[in-house]
Amino acid sequence: MNNLRIELAKNLKPKPQDETKLGFGDIFTDHMFLMDYDEGQGWHDARIVPYGPLPLDPAAMALHYSQEVFEGMKAYRAEDGRILLFRPQENFARLNRSNDRVCIPQIDEEFALQALIELLKIEKDWVPHLKDTSLYIRPFIIASDAHLGVRPANSYLFVIILSPSGPYYKEGLNPVKLYVENNYVRTVRGGTGMAKTGGNYAASLKAQVEAHEQNYSQVLWLDGVEKKYIEEVGAMNVFFVIDGEVITPELVGSILPGITRKSCIEMLRGMGYKVTERRLSIQEVAEAYKAGKLDEAFGTGTAAVISPIGHIKWGDLIMDINNNEIGDISMKLYNELTGLQWGRIPDPYGWVVEVK
Amino acid sequence: MNNLRIELAKNLKPKPQDETKLGFGDIFTDHMFLMDYDEGQGWHDARIVPYGPLPLDPAAMALHYSQEVFEGMKAYRAEDGRILLFRPQENFARLNRSNDRVCIPQIDEEFALQALIELLKIEKDWVPHLKDTSLYIRPFIIASDAHLGVRPANSYLFVIILSPSGPYYKEGLNPVKLYVENNYVRTVRGGTGMAKTGGNYAASLKAQVEAHEQNYSQVLWLDGVEKKYIEEVGAMNVFFVIDGEVITPELVGSILPGITRKSCIEMLRGMGYKVTERRLSIQEVAEAYKAGKLDEAFGTGTAAVISPIGHIKWGDLIMDINNNEIGDISMKLYNELTGLQWGRIPDPYGWVVEVK
Repeated sequence: MNNLRIELAKNLKPKPQDETKLGFGDIFTDHMFLMDYDEGQGWHDARIVPYGPLPLDPAAMALHYSQEVFEGMKAYRAEDGRILLFRPQENFARLNRSNDRVCIPQIDEEFALQALIELLKIEKDWVPHLKDTSLYIRPFIIASDAHLGVRPANSYLFVIILSPSGPYYKEGLNPVKLYVENNYVRTVRGGTGMAKTGGNYAASLKAQVEAHEQNYSQVLWLDGVEKKYIEEVGAMNVFFVIDGEVITPELVGSILPGITRKSCIEMLRGMGYKVTERRLSIQEVAEAYKAGKLDEAFGTGTAAVISPIGHIKWGDLIMDINNNEIGDISMKLYNELTGLQWGRIPDPYGWVVEVK
Repeated sequence: MNNLRIELAKNLKPKPQDETKLGFGDIFTDHMFLMDYDEGQGWHDARIVPYGPLPLDPAAMALHYSQEVFEGMKAYRAEDGRILLFRPQENFARLNRSNDRVCIPQIDEEFALQALIELLKIEKDWVPHLKDTSLYIRPFIIASDAHLGVRPANSYLFVIILSPSGPYYKEGLNPVKLYVENNYVRTVRGGTGMAKTGGNYAASLKAQVEAHEQNYSQVLWLDGVEKKYIEEVGAMNVFFVIDGEVITPELVGSILPGITRKSCIEMLRGMGYKVTERRLSIQEVAEAYKAGKLDEAFGTGTAAVISPIGHIKWGDLIMDINNNEIGDISMKLYNELTGLQWGRIPDPYGWVVEVK
């Protein structure tokens, strides 16, 4: 690649010995991608360099005003050793939509993907081998100006780091427990919910801590206006199977447009299921549950993959879904999605990109 | 002070020569305060060290999930050379309330204030002399763990930096122009609006850019639920004088509890004005305007001080307030507030803290 400087690390770190012990997002590889933006100059000085601290001025605007966006992707190792990406173009396209929301300049999506592939070629031995493990990819952009007035920054840093990881939830494919959050709000229409930007996550922490204290994995967020309609889980989008119909909340501006979500809708339709994107109230889910028509529920996300939901608490109502077991549709979807991602089945969609 | 290590800079930077040219938050002094937090150990290693880059791991959680809070305060130089702070205890108390909202561990407020005073004693020559200039103080806390799963961090960095600054608005005491934002939302009840955390500011940037393009200084935010009730301006709280009564939006959870706001309410009551904290719709303001009863409007904030509002655009309605001149109440308030802050008048409230 032109315009990409590469400086290799002199000393390589030991790779994780026991891949059964891989956590999520704790270990980082030997190199990272960096690129600078300066007003008037545009994006420049793309480089792959040894992984190390970013020397940020204490007044760097991202540290004060959270002008920052990120993406989450994975590199998967196929049984034949190939390294695969899943719809990476979608991630860089979404990164640019997030950029737009918080006034960060657009990146060249094609260049970013090529730079990522170069980085992955250098770090290919870091892609783990064990089933359900992957190399988690974190592209992110932060405002780096040293300035304390509130305005969009004039300089930015685009970074890609890589982390060999196991499952996001310790439950794996065992169903997770959610509780419906009634107090805190993650974001609202007109806010930043459709963007992958830090503030949405900071806003979600307190509810998550309270959920953990009650032995729940995550919270299920309702809309911030009426507190009636189901939005998402923060780390994943959600789907409900009611009376044979697969329903997921429509993208109303406060919900992250998940790439796994979008892929699942297409795959389910390909399998012949009726899939509907629409407003879905927690009341409707509760009524379906009481009528014995809530067949399955599951979450989707790059980190979470397909995560069956076995238990939802809404006020005093406890909904135990499908006897706390993974449902048929969730299982089929999991097999198809992970089959594509790890190259175990043919890809009729053109979604898989090989790193080569 | 015990427990505060001091390492002085070997080379000092030149101080700004022409204080009439001071901008806001662009220049930083020779030293900064730092303190670390680690799970199990608590806050430790408080130190004043030369101002310089913070070496943050690229996976530091503040850069991804915006787990970060800040404060804004000023050190004022009195004519007799004394250096004064204005209600600094309130800022550290609010910092702890912000901490609570985004799951950052509490700080020792009294220790933080003493550490700030030590830092100011070292940097006293950086407090500018010119009227309306001050040394802006920025305490902030960022999550510093290198971890990509979404959860509260286990380690944090508490930093205080100082910046000699002129007025926040280039308009100075000339009235600013606002427009009522109808599209974007800054935050919502149940969100993080009452906390000084970065995500609120990132969410506000796009509306601010659009306002600037139309030659407005800032936007006036409405509530995120009904888009009816006035909230704040992002950089300041707002007050309206309608038919002799001073009205400011009540603190409903989505509005920053400004220390200047609180002080103005107390001062105005002391001057004998009727001050009401309540919900105030933009419709009510518009009707008062049409009836000739919208006497004055102004914003309050540490950075903005008292900023008269001369012009508000709401859809097609343009409200020109008090002939675009500063009103009597705004002027009295400005004189009393700045009189206290710069030590020009006696302090009957016990709000002023001298650095000595």
